Amino acid sequence: MVRFNIEEIAKKKETRIVLALDFPFFGLNNQEKLLAKAQYVLKEVHPYISAVKINHHLVLPLGTFQGVKKLIELIHEKDVPVIMDCKANDIGATNKVIAEYYYSAGFDAIIANPFVGWIEGLKPLFEVAERMQRGVILLAYMSHKGAEEGYGQLVYDKNKEEKIPQYISFARKALKWGADGVVVGATVPKRITEIYKILGDKIPIYAPGIGVQGGKAKAALNAGASYLIVGRSITLADNPKKTAKLLQETLK
Amino acid sequence: MVRFNIEEIAKKKETRIVLALDFPFFGLNNQEKLLAKAQYVLKEVHPYISAVKINHHLVLPLGTFQGVKKLIELIHEKDVPVIMDCKANDIGATNKVIAEYYYSAGFDAIIANPFVGWIEGLKPLFEVAERMQRGVILLAYMSHKGAEEGYGQLVYDKNKEEKIPQYISFARKALKWGADGVVVGATVPKRITEIYKILGDKIPIYAPGIGVQGGKAKAALNAGASYLIVGRSITLADNPKKTAKLLQETLK
Repeated sequence: MVRFNIEEIAKKKETRIVLALDFPFFGLNNQEKLLAKAQYVLKEVHPYISAVKINHHLVLPLGTFQGVKKLIELIHEKDVPVIMDCKANDIGATNKVIAEYYYSAGFDAIIANPFVGWIEGLKPLFEVAERMQRGVILLAYMSHKGAEEGYGQLVYDKNKEEKIPQYISFARKALKWGADGVVVGATVPKRITEIYKILGDKIPIYAPGIGVQGGKAKAALNAGASYLIVGRSITLADNPKKTAKLLQETLK
Repeated sequence: MVRFNIEEIAKKKETRIVLALDFPFFGLNNQEKLLAKAQYVLKEVHPYISAVKINHHLVLPLGTFQGVKKLIELIHEKDVPVIMDCKANDIGATNKVIAEYYYSAGFDAIIANPFVGWIEGLKPLFEVAERMQRGVILLAYMSHKGAEEGYGQLVYDKNKEEKIPQYISFARKALKWGADGVVVGATVPKRITEIYKILGDKIPIYAPGIGVQGGKAKAALNAGASYLIVGRSITLADNPKKTAKLLQETLK
């Protein structure tokens, strides 16, 4: 947990909001405009957030070591940590390279999918995290409808000879592997409750899907989430600052 | 299948090799050197390959619309298609943006993880593929040891009330969703045989893990694979051209 210290900032600023800095497809030659838009949103909302989450909406058009690195520097200037939502799910040798590049670019934590397994899977990624003292956050149940197919399926646990939901298996792996956080959709508060029963206060739950995707902020916090990931309802708002401030005050 | 025509090229050039253009972590200020190395390997081996697969080893340091776009142009000059191995596994709105950027950069196909499900998952990605006439290749069983945990687990199929391996469920989804290819590790030829029984000649199997990871090329082809994904044993060879030529001739 020491590797990724979001809790201190969240307490100090009295906010549980993690800003997902996501924008729609911006076309092919609008990198400058997209970068400026992202910088504008950050400058407006940073007092009301505890971390920023970046995804491929920015990495693909701007480049990790080109535009995104500038954004990370701006975010760090505001004393805010930044998470890369790459949902890493590759073989170990590749996960290692992915982690080395993202952490080197300045990311404080990255998100990975435990479905890929441990040996020659996420183990090399956790080793890089340990060496570079950064965080790893694991997916446990995503916020979209189709999540039921994979995250919601029943799987057979060979060791215990029992039938358990996939997300329970993932929550147990998060504990076993020493993850710094777990993602559970705010759209499924019942799953947050079940997973919180397993994790307790040992690993914080990040709940995406607030706003546009229909997840309710208070229900997610009451169910056991520590952080609310809010994206398009802030980034696409007419007034991102007002929207973020209002949400932060409502939740305080 | 029309969307991503690798078969014609493979037949004409008599090669089943897909080059995984992967390199280890190259440090932070070596982009020019990495780009030059990738260009060198491509120029040497393009006569012996049917497609190139690019992963984060290049996208992260070089940038999709910066260095990688130059590589795609070089690959296309040689009449070789190029696959982005992003293992997309995000919510639909994000998968859509990911597909729009990668296809716009010139990629002919992208790899996705069926674990994320259909509704608000991979459906929007397949819709972009259809609209832009590009390919989608799905993971069915990866080449590393830990793949057993997820891809090898037994899952409960609600519709048929049966217990089936996850990779069988993924192969069925590939048929149902109209995938242009399926990835099954060359390290697990028995799984290739089982999946080939489901897919027949309707969807080609891509087998990674040849060489460094220990997969045997001929065993994979005999089991039903159409393409062999070969990476580090070519890209890190003292003589990439000789290595690729020898492999192609051995398999002919």
